[in-house]
Amino acid sequence: MIDRGFHHDGSADHVSTLAPEPGETVTVFVRTPREHRSGVYVRTTPDGEPHFTEAVVDRETEHELWWRADVVARNPVTRYRFLLTGSGSGSGSGSAGGAGNPPGYRWLTASGLVAHDVPDATDFRLVTHAAPPAWAAASTVYQIFPDRFASSGARRETPEWAIPCDWDDPVAGTGPSTPRQLFGGDLDGIRSRLGHVAGLGADTLYLTPVFPAASNHRYNASSFAEADPLLGGDAAYRALIDDAHRRGMRVLGDLTTNHCGDIHPWFRAALKDKDAPEREMFFFTDGDLGYEAWMGVPSLPKLDWSSERLAAAMEEVVRHWLRFGLDGWRIDVANMTGRLRGSDLTREVARRIRRAVAAERPDGLLVAEHAHDATGDLDADGWQGTMNYAGFTRPVWSWLRGPEVRLPFLGVPAEVPRIGGGDAVATMRAFSGHMSWRALTHSWSILGSHDTARIRTVCGDPALVEVAAGLMFTLPGTPMVFAGDELGLEGSWGEDARRTMPWEHPQAWDTRTLGAYRDLIALRRGEPALTGGGLRWLHVSDDAVAYLRERAGERLLVLAARAAHPPVRLPLGSAATALYGEADLAPDAEGVLTLPADGPAFHVWRLG
Amino acid sequence: MIDRGFHHDGSADHVSTLAPEPGETVTVFVRTPREHRSGVYVRTTPDGEPHFTEAVVDRETEHELWWRADVVARNPVTRYRFLLTGSGSGSGSGSAGGAGNPPGYRWLTASGLVAHDVPDATDFRLVTHAAPPAWAAASTVYQIFPDRFASSGARRETPEWAIPCDWDDPVAGTGPSTPRQLFGGDLDGIRSRLGHVAGLGADTLYLTPVFPAASNHRYNASSFAEADPLLGGDAAYRALIDDAHRRGMRVLGDLTTNHCGDIHPWFRAALKDKDAPEREMFFFTDGDLGYEAWMGVPSLPKLDWSSERLAAAMEEVVRHWLRFGLDGWRIDVANMTGRLRGSDLTREVARRIRRAVAAERPDGLLVAEHAHDATGDLDADGWQGTMNYAGFTRPVWSWLRGPEVRLPFLGVPAEVPRIGGGDAVATMRAFSGHMSWRALTHSWSILGSHDTARIRTVCGDPALVEVAAGLMFTLPGTPMVFAGDELGLEGSWGEDARRTMPWEHPQAWDTRTLGAYRDLIALRRGEPALTGGGLRWLHVSDDAVAYLRERAGERLLVLAARAAHPPVRLPLGSAATALYGEADLAPDAEGVLTLPADGPAFHVWRLG
Repeated sequence: MIDRGFHHDGSADHVSTLAPEPGETVTVFVRTPREHRSGVYVRTTPDGEPHFTEAVVDRETEHELWWRADVVARNPVTRYRFLLTGSGSGSGSGSAGGAGNPPGYRWLTASGLVAHDVPDATDFRLVTHAAPPAWAAASTVYQIFPDRFASSGARRETPEWAIPCDWDDPVAGTGPSTPRQLFGGDLDGIRSRLGHVAGLGADTLYLTPVFPAASNHRYNASSFAEADPLLGGDAAYRALIDDAHRRGMRVLGDLTTNHCGDIHPWFRAALKDKDAPEREMFFFTDGDLGYEAWMGVPSLPKLDWSSERLAAAMEEVVRHWLRFGLDGWRIDVANMTGRLRGSDLTREVARRIRRAVAAERPDGLLVAEHAHDATGDLDADGWQGTMNYAGFTRPVWSWLRGPEVRLPFLGVPAEVPRIGGGDAVATMRAFSGHMSWRALTHSWSILGSHDTARIRTVCGDPALVEVAAGLMFTLPGTPMVFAGDELGLEGSWGEDARRTMPWEHPQAWDTRTLGAYRDLIALRRGEPALTGGGLRWLHVSDDAVAYLRERAGERLLVLAARAAHPPVRLPLGSAATALYGEADLAPDAEGVLTLPADGPAFHVWRLG
Repeated sequence: MIDRGFHHDGSADHVSTLAPEPGETVTVFVRTPREHRSGVYVRTTPDGEPHFTEAVVDRETEHELWWRADVVARNPVTRYRFLLTGSGSGSGSGSAGGAGNPPGYRWLTASGLVAHDVPDATDFRLVTHAAPPAWAAASTVYQIFPDRFASSGARRETPEWAIPCDWDDPVAGTGPSTPRQLFGGDLDGIRSRLGHVAGLGADTLYLTPVFPAASNHRYNASSFAEADPLLGGDAAYRALIDDAHRRGMRVLGDLTTNHCGDIHPWFRAALKDKDAPEREMFFFTDGDLGYEAWMGVPSLPKLDWSSERLAAAMEEVVRHWLRFGLDGWRIDVANMTGRLRGSDLTREVARRIRRAVAAERPDGLLVAEHAHDATGDLDADGWQGTMNYAGFTRPVWSWLRGPEVRLPFLGVPAEVPRIGGGDAVATMRAFSGHMSWRALTHSWSILGSHDTARIRTVCGDPALVEVAAGLMFTLPGTPMVFAGDELGLEGSWGEDARRTMPWEHPQAWDTRTLGAYRDLIALRRGEPALTGGGLRWLHVSDDAVAYLRERAGERLLVLAARAAHPPVRLPLGSAATALYGEADLAPDAEGVLTLPADGPAFHVWRLG
């Protein structure tokens, strides 16, 4: 048993409210082994000073005690952790606990149980900032790169920058033509394929930028004021959004708040005239380029958020498209937005954007791209979640990548390592411990995106893809599927992965993977324990990990294995009914379940 | 070897400057085993985006490679860490490294070597904020509680609140008389005993408050404008400071920026008249008390730093006493200063105070009291260090406390646990990993203070006190001695520990402890490796820890043992000359040193 049978997380079984008001008293519950009959305290740090409250036993089950204590959500982020001093918490690293032991000393934090003091960084968190919208936690996001998803067949004039391509042409993964290949996917095309998305079970569309730009990726917007006429313009965008809404789907936009394209009128005006009012919206310098740009790329001039003109203009962009119909935004390179040398306005930018969203759509969603560690920017009244590359994608890739696969990852100058399940879970817990439960569950669990290799290529084996998808759909977090992953599309890096959807070649579809995605999405949608339950790690070894998702008495057991492994034996004391994967399991006379030892394999059972 | 022979820290051997200018290119050095011949990268996150630079071999020694890379101090706090992918870094947790191994994957961070991704929180840090004064790193602080240190014998009228006591009366550790007992220590008394401080080797006096107040601790100031006449007033304060300066000593004051006393004229004016300009300097509420106070204690009304009147007044207090002669400030309950419910101005308060200090004394020091975790408030252009209770005092106490000693610690509702050396070192590294090297070295290593039990009582055994003192004087950090600890004074909690110095009872002095303190302070003053060297953990076990302090080719080996233990064998390849403790050591034919196995014991050797 990981953490010796002690458990707390931010889920509904353990916290009386996930969206406390400032000053509200929140009841928290912590679970201990039955032997641990005294010495449970919750520590908070109101206004910066430690404060302890002794917990009391709320109820007793066959296997554990549920302890209860009150915590006041006094500050915008109220951190708390548990001190365990009872005789059952053990005193040495090898101790198994028990009534005869000397007094123990353990802290239970969001990164797990530790036998020594640690900084507050991994404390559990109550957050009184405006909560993410209720619809988001149970959603499944489907990411579409508009040029490559589907074409309506409409004929449009090819702009000067573009190299027109036929749908079945190979993508140029590198070279000058990479951003210029235009395959002609458009908004009507997307609309025509909503049946596919609905059939998969996804309910939230996330479109990478649809603004006009001199590239196929459109991250160098020449306008934030209209949808690209090459994609069908505002009319097609409205038709798509309306159709999606009619199907009960949400639609999220993609906004670059860090930069715009160098042909954007703001930048042209600023460049042309030193006295132009737009001048303050950028960073002009004496350097070679003459202005600050994203990673020094001339076509992507960086926006200056200390300019009230810029801030107001961007807030209006945010608001305009929500009025138009969007349900929220994904913010591009949020990690850099507002940061430059001595100035760090990122949290202020995030706060302004969140408030702009809320002004139009109280139930709007705001998710930030962060390619490495977003934890410093979450829980700050801004981004409600992140694209969880650091805390999900990398550990899953590193655990499940094919032994012979050699791939980079988002600029790290080393192949994705091959690590055991212990290190993969340790990575997930290291990152999830640095954010609130609600930031974790509203962050996107991603197996790949338009910026990375495809999961099929990472794993090299559909059986491993199924394990990866299993983790994505059953761990806390909002699943995000990059369109085409469900068909087994391949690609070795971001640009190489932006391949067109093979609508006309169903024989090329990986139907096993498609079936697995459909089944897993359906499973998730139907199980509150998966969309809102707690997470309890039960077993980790090099080749297999097992965990519980629990909510309101419902317990789902998950086993993920990348290879055949020694059988995992868990003293769970009840039978297990298969929900995904192999047959039902019965406990032995001691109540122990012996899980299947094959692999790669992914299983979900209902307990009890 | 801890961390498998990979090492970096913020000390001068490893970083080309400890006080980089904004934008300055800093050269960093990382050491690896000789087998690790490729795949060393430094990762920074300029403006929030990861950036990797490959390191090159700078030089080679008999046992290791020194790698070199450049890091630009682009942001006020530039975080960096090392990625180790070479074949020598090992790939499995049990691997010993070696040329035949598969590519490894390790991060070296300020908390050590990890085999999986972790958040940026423990990255090494370059900080471009104004650096602490050059004199501080090598100083030894001597803390004086004025009422209890020494009396000049001057006769003064006893104020109404006070209970006059004779010097040899017992202190009342609890009860209504605790803050009222007045033993009559004064500033002239302190001045008369500077010879003792100088003889000990300490060079920085830190006096708890000297402001007038209706208590013996004086944290409830009735004025910040004068030294308490009961202590001799401004004239005696000036004489003390002048005398100390003549001896080459520095003097630090103690300021409550979080609150003042309820008889302070600011508060009296604010209380009397709702329209008084002083009203905005406090938090008046509809609650029972009618105003916010420290921990609800009515005599300590909380100051409101959102009031420009308050901020300006406190800045003037800070500046006045520096002009008067102080060399810096220790800030009381810095952890709460500026924090209340939805408002968190702490960093802004710290920044204003630091700038106020710098305006009068560019070489002034600013250290913050934090009873638990200060890491979130350091490296932010404010506090230059903390009283390191969390990262030093607690792990040392927990490792060295007498097996039968039962003591609380600063409000934690559990006895100080008894932990092994591994957990003690893990605690130190957990906290030191969350701050810059310069914040660590300018934080105070404390064995006890006026707020805690005495180290003699904690350990129960002078032999263990010597080990504790050894750690205090040889680990990175600024040693702070609470007056009387060097004589073996006892006390089981803060108020109980505020016993008078037994000047007239030299037979009661613990001369062994006094000798150890003198020797250790002298050793530290004479060894740049101790005041400015790096720290490398070599060995940890339940009962013994060993480490190197290194600077410019000088290597000091330290062994601290709380009990007899299996002999520690270290392949250091050179002879060891005793600087503290037992005899010299010679390596065996394989270059291995076998360290003494007795305990409690503390040793320092010079290597090579």
